[in-house]
Amino acid sequence: MNIEMIEAAALRLQGHARLTPILSSPFLDDIAGRRVLVKAECLQHTGSFKFRGGWSAVSALDPAARETGVIAYSSGNHAQGVALAARRHGVRAVIIMPDDAPAVKIENTRALGAEVVLYDRDTEDRDAIGTTLAARDGLHLIKPFDDPQVIAGQGTVGLELAWQLRNESLEAADVLVCCGGGGLTSGIALALESRAPALCVRTVEPEGFDDTARSLAAGDICTNARSSGSLCDAIVTPHPGELTFPIMQRLCGSGLVVTEDECLKAMAAAFERLRIVLEPGGAVSLAAALFHPAELSGDTVIAVATGGNVDPALFARAIEGGTSGG
Amino acid sequence: MNIEMIEAAALRLQGHARLTPILSSPFLDDIAGRRVLVKAECLQHTGSFKFRGGWSAVSALDPAARETGVIAYSSGNHAQGVALAARRHGVRAVIIMPDDAPAVKIENTRALGAEVVLYDRDTEDRDAIGTTLAARDGLHLIKPFDDPQVIAGQGTVGLELAWQLRNESLEAADVLVCCGGGGLTSGIALALESRAPALCVRTVEPEGFDDTARSLAAGDICTNARSSGSLCDAIVTPHPGELTFPIMQRLCGSGLVVTEDECLKAMAAAFERLRIVLEPGGAVSLAAALFHPAELSGDTVIAVATGGNVDPALFARAIEGGTSGG
Repeated sequence: MNIEMIEAAALRLQGHARLTPILSSPFLDDIAGRRVLVKAECLQHTGSFKFRGGWSAVSALDPAARETGVIAYSSGNHAQGVALAARRHGVRAVIIMPDDAPAVKIENTRALGAEVVLYDRDTEDRDAIGTTLAARDGLHLIKPFDDPQVIAGQGTVGLELAWQLRNESLEAADVLVCCGGGGLTSGIALALESRAPALCVRTVEPEGFDDTARSLAAGDICTNARSSGSLCDAIVTPHPGELTFPIMQRLCGSGLVVTEDECLKAMAAAFERLRIVLEPGGAVSLAAALFHPAELSGDTVIAVATGGNVDPALFARAIEGGTSGG
Repeated sequence: MNIEMIEAAALRLQGHARLTPILSSPFLDDIAGRRVLVKAECLQHTGSFKFRGGWSAVSALDPAARETGVIAYSSGNHAQGVALAARRHGVRAVIIMPDDAPAVKIENTRALGAEVVLYDRDTEDRDAIGTTLAARDGLHLIKPFDDPQVIAGQGTVGLELAWQLRNESLEAADVLVCCGGGGLTSGIALALESRAPALCVRTVEPEGFDDTARSLAAGDICTNARSSGSLCDAIVTPHPGELTFPIMQRLCGSGLVVTEDECLKAMAAAFERLRIVLEPGGAVSLAAALFHPAELSGDTVIAVATGGNVDPALFARAIEGGTSGG
């Protein structure tokens, strides 16, 4: 993994991924006690940064290899990102999803042109299904984070940030990134190492699923006790990736951990002050920016808001709870 | 009013207003039966395009005249736009608001640094209060739409649109604009007349408050029977402006009218598919794009989504109602 791979991904993404805006509000600055800049990646195609990694991986394939199609495991944002990237390349996408995934997610993935293969979490092994299908049909597996071209695609968020902040006189600032397996975090960290080395990438995770924060503190990969049960389902992974962790270890500051209540309040603040829709897992970075000021340094903080695919009922609950101090 | 005034406003706005993105989703295209491009002006500072007009008017004042401050009448988006523009120029802003305006709007306007003067709608005359205050303190009145520099500021949305669409091969397309007094509509129409003459600006209003559609059809200014009682309060005005109507008459196609139910559905679709927050009055354009396909022409439609300042309870109602076909 290196900056050249991210630059190459950026070229492939040009005209296909959206350059997402950086948003701000004096009201958020007042809550945080410093300037807050929000990279609104929820406005990316399919509603999350995952489209970048999906596009990067599909477009990096040799055309002959790509022709037979791609396969991915996901019930969420990665599924939609890969599905749309494949559709726009005119190739087949097979997405393996648990049969208890929300109906709307299955429908959406199908509506983006993917073939959805459902499996029973209790009795079937998705890896076995995937391996069989991939071998039979010559499908190329696109992993959600531990894939160099996926990391390179997500890293284009970092290139954009460096470019968008070029006129700001930021001596140093924390860049808060919602962290699951670490594909986005490690990609951004590599991009900023090269383009804006004064910026320090910090991971943010929900309480109880802070595998990356603990891994960074321990200097070795740690695992979460639970694998589900978080509102922030989009960023819950058992542990950091094998490719991503060494990059995060070398380049990132200490990890931050926020509560679910702080996530919901951050969603309400983003609704009211930025007029964007965030899902809980996409709001942990803003939650840390707003509600953990003592753990940050500098007069500006940058929060990458990573996704906005959220059920209406949960979003309604978040915004009707209201912001504290907003 | 001419294109040079809009270009001059664009120069003054550079680095101050946000260049708002154009968003899209294959799911919205499917509902509308054509490609739908949404100019997300709800992401502008203060949550609506009104910041552009406010900044344009404040920045156009002679510095000596500006020094004493500005005054505006508004309980909504214009108030916040003028307040923030004045604050960033370091000048005083007095906003005259009815004393029954929602507390949160009064608080927000004050939090943006404005002095709020409350009046009783039943017993006091806001014009008299404004005139007295303006004369006493030398404040410059910034009208919400019938002001050349305000129209010029709103017209910068049109310049941006033309620039953002420069690589699209749009033979012809309707540009749908949420219309109150017509400041935004006339500004965009003037900008596109010069920069993208194949695009046809069409006004969109809520049922029962379709003064502009009727005025355009009649060739003369018509007035609404009611002055309140619409969910789309941000775009309810008694009739088109004296400056704005002749411009709209010369440049716009026929006006469109949507129901409140269509607005709520458009808000839900924007939430689910674009991850942006729209207020009812900011969603009428998208409602027309999605639900009035037979009244439009071309294979692409552009909807200017004008604002996103909405109460959580109303937004929750819109998104929990769900989209039809979305």
